[in-house]
Order: sequence, then structure tokens, then C-alpha cells
Amino acid sequence: MKKLCEMTQEEKDAFYQKALADYQGYKAQGLKIDMSRGKPGPEQLVFSDALYHSVDENHYKSEDGTDCRNYGGLMGIDESRQLFAHMLGVEKKNVIACGNASLSLMFDYISQCMTHGCGDKPWMQQGKVKFIAVVPGYDRHFAIAEHFGIEMVNVPIRADGPDMDMVEEIIKDPSVKGMFCVPKYSNPDGVTYSAEVVERLAAMEPAAKDFRVIYDNAYVVHDLYDETEPLAEIFTAAKKYGHEDNFIEFASTSKITFPGAGVAALAASDNNIAAIKKRLTVQVISYDKLNQLRHSRVFRNMDDIHAQMKRHASIMRPKFEAVEEILEKELGGLGIARWTNPKGGYFISLYLQGVSAKRVGVLCKEAGLTLTPVGATYPYGVDPDDSNIRIAPTFPSVEELKTCAEILTAAVRVAACE
Amino acid sequence: MKKLCEMTQEEKDAFYQKALADYQGYKAQGLKIDMSRGKPGPEQLVFSDALYHSVDENHYKSEDGTDCRNYGGLMGIDESRQLFAHMLGVEKKNVIACGNASLSLMFDYISQCMTHGCGDKPWMQQGKVKFIAVVPGYDRHFAIAEHFGIEMVNVPIRADGPDMDMVEEIIKDPSVKGMFCVPKYSNPDGVTYSAEVVERLAAMEPAAKDFRVIYDNAYVVHDLYDETEPLAEIFTAAKKYGHEDNFIEFASTSKITFPGAGVAALAASDNNIAAIKKRLTVQVISYDKLNQLRHSRVFRNMDDIHAQMKRHASIMRPKFEAVEEILEKELGGLGIARWTNPKGGYFISLYLQGVSAKRVGVLCKEAGLTLTPVGATYPYGVDPDDSNIRIAPTFPSVEELKTCAEILTAAVRVAACE
Repeated sequence: MKKLCEMTQEEKDAFYQKALADYQGYKAQGLKIDMSRGKPGPEQLVFSDALYHSVDENHYKSEDGTDCRNYGGLMGIDESRQLFAHMLGVEKKNVIACGNASLSLMFDYISQCMTHGCGDKPWMQQGKVKFIAVVPGYDRHFAIAEHFGIEMVNVPIRADGPDMDMVEEIIKDPSVKGMFCVPKYSNPDGVTYSAEVVERLAAMEPAAKDFRVIYDNAYVVHDLYDETEPLAEIFTAAKKYGHEDNFIEFASTSKITFPGAGVAALAASDNNIAAIKKRLTVQVISYDKLNQLRHSRVFRNMDDIHAQMKRHASIMRPKFEAVEEILEKELGGLGIARWTNPKGGYFISLYLQGVSAKRVGVLCKEAGLTLTPVGATYPYGVDPDDSNIRIAPTFPSVEELKTCAEILTAAVRVAACE
Repeated sequence: MKKLCEMTQEEKDAFYQKALADYQGYKAQGLKIDMSRGKPGPEQLVFSDALYHSVDENHYKSEDGTDCRNYGGLMGIDESRQLFAHMLGVEKKNVIACGNASLSLMFDYISQCMTHGCGDKPWMQQGKVKFIAVVPGYDRHFAIAEHFGIEMVNVPIRADGPDMDMVEEIIKDPSVKGMFCVPKYSNPDGVTYSAEVVERLAAMEPAAKDFRVIYDNAYVVHDLYDETEPLAEIFTAAKKYGHEDNFIEFASTSKITFPGAGVAALAASDNNIAAIKKRLTVQVISYDKLNQLRHSRVFRNMDDIHAQMKRHASIMRPKFEAVEEILEKELGGLGIARWTNPKGGYFISLYLQGVSAKRVGVLCKEAGLTLTPVGATYPYGVDPDDSNIRIAPTFPSVEELKTCAEILTAAVRVAACE
């Protein structure tokens, strides 16, 4: 297709009329579709039905004989810790298996840094604290930082991960205490950090002695295709530099089993595990070991996990591809948008070029399509380029999604002409 | 029996020899019994077996149609909130149904006060912060305060609740920001606060504008006998004085169903619910709604709860009575100890008179009996009178318990003579 900017006025007029007609056509249907959040669809949730039946009156003990019904077992049951250790490529002793939400683990860890610090004074007693926000990124990471008054400094993501030249410059400021990373199939761009980026992250020498990377490996096994994008293991790299204390890694089964009733875990260095454990002895008696056991009895090893992820992919891949196809058909070659074709994760990231993402958001909303709020992929909800739209194609059905993509692309075309 | 202090030297010598022989006899058996923690025994846990089967592939939606498997529903499912509302005598809108541990809810709330405050500056920015510790009390409450550097001021508990004259005096200090209470069948004394004490708590006018009572109603339905000890509802009382913001109430099913895999909840004023909700939108996506549903389908109303508690009582009552009987038999009338005969809760509280509790703890340990660490029922682990021993008679079997009580009473008699 001809680029919009190269069209004659007549061609532009015709293009606009067509876009408007498409858009108005959808608007007239009075639809109400939600494409705002990265949550699995109901077709995926049935893949975890075995969880309802894996613990019962005869199966409530973990492998080492722990009664999972009762109190105790602060670090989680062995088999759950072991599974996450395999998933993340670390040792079991460096893993704590926890409750249903990795978000809470991240919140709690940052809260701990605020009140108790991590190797220096509590962050709350150190004046301004800053974090690097890799952008676009996950709105709930940014919300945690904002909640604690941590100022965020944007670093753009590239095809191979965060712009490390910028990162290395910014961490010379001792008030920069940390960084949010989603190293595999990043939210929303679907970028997997290259081996070189992981190495540079591991090698970082921040001015702050109490610098922590919130390394959110939310999509560690969440491939859409048979081939995975390899991710170098961060602690292996960090150990070479003696920097393993800089990283706290998180994962969960939220998008492997039941989003609201899964198991989350964290991985950290020996020092950090000891510090976290010290807090946990005060904060919890034990996480829900019965739910850990429920999971471990169904997902005994990484083969079970990968088999499950293939099931998910069989549902999700056609959804991603349906959206990508419509994006290509309706916006390809126009020079007004580019987008990602991720190999895993939960999102397609759409970048508008010379078109206001906010305006597109308004047009979509008026046509009954709820998108992730435009700007939400940036700290404070402010996309400096007003360009990025996060597409979450997992929850609606393929048919609904096609409609979503049609509305969205019509709205982009309309906004481009306005 | 004759009081020890009134015995002749000859009688004392005989008493000591008998005590020593009893003690050495148990010690020689090389026992290893744990009576340290308030956790239900395995005979009680089978009463919740229905929970394994109450959600499945056909039953995963809450009454309002929420898919409990997926994300969402920050406040918990309606039926879970409603049940806790009934349990606590408050409105559903003032309840949040959460994860498996009320301890975490208390920790998180105090953490929120430290970093964000509650109606004034963050506690971390107000210099010294103090809390009233009703003593003897729950070691894990004190551990939370200690973790956050909150200084504790002891107030003794009486037969009807905390010494309110002392409380009313201490809260004139504006650095006193709160108080821990277990208003029903208190840990460890089994005291239920009288209507007058509840009224005086409600009427408190602390100098601190940001004063919060951590009102841990852990044993709200945990009767050992058919008759319950009535507890006036705190928010009803507090509203008369416009003080409902002063109280955050906690409860859980930990000792109703599975200690490690139950549902916890908090109740608070409209203002406090709003403030807590604001944090929770950042801290969690949703608690485990499937586990809430699992519980709500088995425990539909308070009748179901009370029926369950009668089952628990049928196991626990004989355990309490076995210990009480041996205490009476071995220590009654000697003038060296008094103890509680609670009508509910999880503990018997033993007070030694002129005998070192620490020494008794050592003697028990040497004979293979693990008690709650002596001192643990006081802040910083320091019992100023070295007098209180918390007896947790729920986990061992009745036979084991009798042995525990025999060892303990022998140790007390030995220590009394030493």
C-alpha cells in the first residue's frame, strides 16, 4: 500500500472516507469488547482442571511428609521450590515458593527496601529514590514505584532489551536504586533480552550500594511457537562479577494454570534469601502449601510445564496471528504504524507514527472497544511520544478479536487523517 | 494440698524428693513432644475434608458469576465477605476477604502505616512510635512491632480485658500510635473483653490522631463449650464516639478449616477500607478467590461455622480438660502456680508464683518437652516477672498431653523447691 504521506489529496480524501465509513460501521453496531488486560481466556483455563482433583483426603502431604494443611514451611514445599528452580535455572535453596501473586512479592520486596533497606539505610531515609523504568513496560511495576514515591527514569527498550548505554549512564547517580525488567517476552513489546544485554545487566556497577533489579520473569515459559527465544540465566552471569545480590527474580504459574489461584515464587542470592526469610518469619506463618501441592502433583517437572504451555499456545497463537494479519492488511505500508510480532508473552505492541495514540484510544472507546489505557505502558501514565498502544489479544475469542483489530485499525486510519 | 510455703522442712524435703523422682522418671523415657504452638491436631483437620471437593470444573464461579479462576475481584468474592461480615457482626461493605493468613494482613497494615501513615505523616517520619502490648499476648504481634522498630509498652490483662486505666493514661502520649488486642479468648489467657472494656476501648481519645488498634479477633467463634462468652461488637461501640477509624479488625478460618490454607479477612471503617483498597490495587491483582469459593461452598452461613466449631470443640475440650485436671492434681493448693480454665481459644496460661518460668522451661526441654519459649508471650521475649508459661494443648494427642502436663507439673514442683 502507498504511504499515507505520499498520497495525493484525492487519494487521501478517499482513504479518509473509507476509514470513516469502516469506523462508523463498527460504531453503529454498539459493541462492548474488552481488550485491556493480559489475562487468559476461558478456553485456556480448562487446561488446568486436573488441579481440582490433585489433593484430597488421601493426598495432602508433600514428598518430605509435611502436612500441607497445617501451619509451617515458610519457604514453601520442596517440590514447588524445585520446579521453580528448574523453570528459572537456579538452585532450590535460592527459591521461595509463595502465594498466588508475584506482584505481591515485588510489592513486599520494595516495601522492605523502603522500611529496612537492602545493604544500606532504609530507602525512606535516603531522600529521593529513583528507579529505571524500561519503557514501554508493565503498568503495575510503575504503580508500585509510584505508590512508594520512587521517581522513575525512562529507558527505552530496543530489539534486544533495554538501552544499556543509557542504563550504564543513569546508574552513576547513587539515588538510582533499582530497575524493573521483564527479560523474556517483555510486556508489552515481547522482547527477549539478548545474551549481551543480560551480561551487561550482570556487570552493572551502580553507584548505589543497595541497587536491586526487580527481574520479573513473568513469561519465562510462555512461548507461542515451538521454538523458544533463549534467555541467558541472570544469576550465572551475575556471579562472575560478584553481583548476584543485585537481582531479585520473580515468576508464577498465573498464566500457566489459574491466574487468580496459582503459585508465585522468587529467586535470589543466598544473602537476599536470608534477608527476605527474616522478614517472612514476621509477615507470614506459611504460604498456602496445599495449593503448592495441588500444582506440584499435576506439574511434576518441566516436561509437564512445557506440555501445558503448548496447550496454551494452541489457543493463543491463532489469536495473535489474527490480530497481526489485520494489522498488516489494514495498516501495512501506510507509514503510520509499526507493531511487534512476538514469539511469546501476552501482548502485541503497536506504535503509531505521527498519529495520536490518545486520539485512537478515544475513538476505540466510543466504538465500544476498551483498550489498555493509552499511556499506561509508561510511568505516570505518560507516553512522551503519545505513540504506544498495548494490544492484549488473549481474552476475547478469535471472532471478537478480529472485530477488535478492525475497529482499532479503522480508528488508527481515521486518526491519521484527522 | 498444703501450701509449699507452709510445709515443714521435712515435708518440703519429701515433696522435693517426690518431684525429682517424678521428673527424672519422665526424663529417663527420652521423650520428644512439642507443645509449643497453637495449631490444630490432625484429628481436627479431617473435619474440613469437604473442601477438597467443593470446587471443580463445574463449580468455579461465585454467586454473582465471577470466574474465580481468573484475575480480578480485589475485595474478595461476595459470599466470602458476607460470611466474615456475619462472623464479625459488621456490614459486607466493610470487609475484604483475602488470602490465607491474617498475620500478613496485620503486617501489611502496619507496614502501610509506616510508609504512608494513616491520617497523618508516615509513622517512619514521626520519630519514635510506640504501641501498647496487652500482656501476656501473642508473640507474632510483638514480632511485627519489633520488626518495624515500634517500641512496646506493656499493659497487663485482667479478667475482663486490658487494664483500661493504664491504657487511658498511656494514650495521652502522642507517640503511642496503636495497640494489639485479641478481644475474645485472648492469646494466651483466654480472656474475653467485657462490655465495659469494649466500651472504654471504643471511647478512647488518644493524643495521636493516627492511632490504630490491631483488633485480632482470631478466636471469634472458637468456643470450647456450648455456651459462648459474649463479646460486644467494637465498631458499633466506636461509632457512638465517631471513633470507627481507630480499629482494624482481623479474622480467619485458619483454626476453622486448614491452618495453612484457609481464608483471612479484615474489617474496617469506610475510610480505612478505602485507604487499604488503594494500597491493594497496587499490591495484589486478586487474592485466591478459588480458595474463598472452596470455603464458601462448604461454609454457607454461620450455622455451618458453628457446627464445625462444635466438631473442633469435641476434640479440643478433652485435651484442655486433661491438662487442667493434671494441673489441679499436681499443683493445686500448693501456692506456687495459678492457671486459666478458658472457655475457648487455643491456650491455657500458667502463672508461676515465686518459681522461675525460665528454669521450668529448661527443665522441660531437658526432659524432651518443647514449650512455647518462656518469655515469648511478652514483648522482646522478656517476661518481667519470669512467671508466665503458655500451654498449647491442641496438637498432641490426649495421651501425649497427659505426659506433657505431668512433665510440666513435675518441673514446676522441682523448680519450686530448688
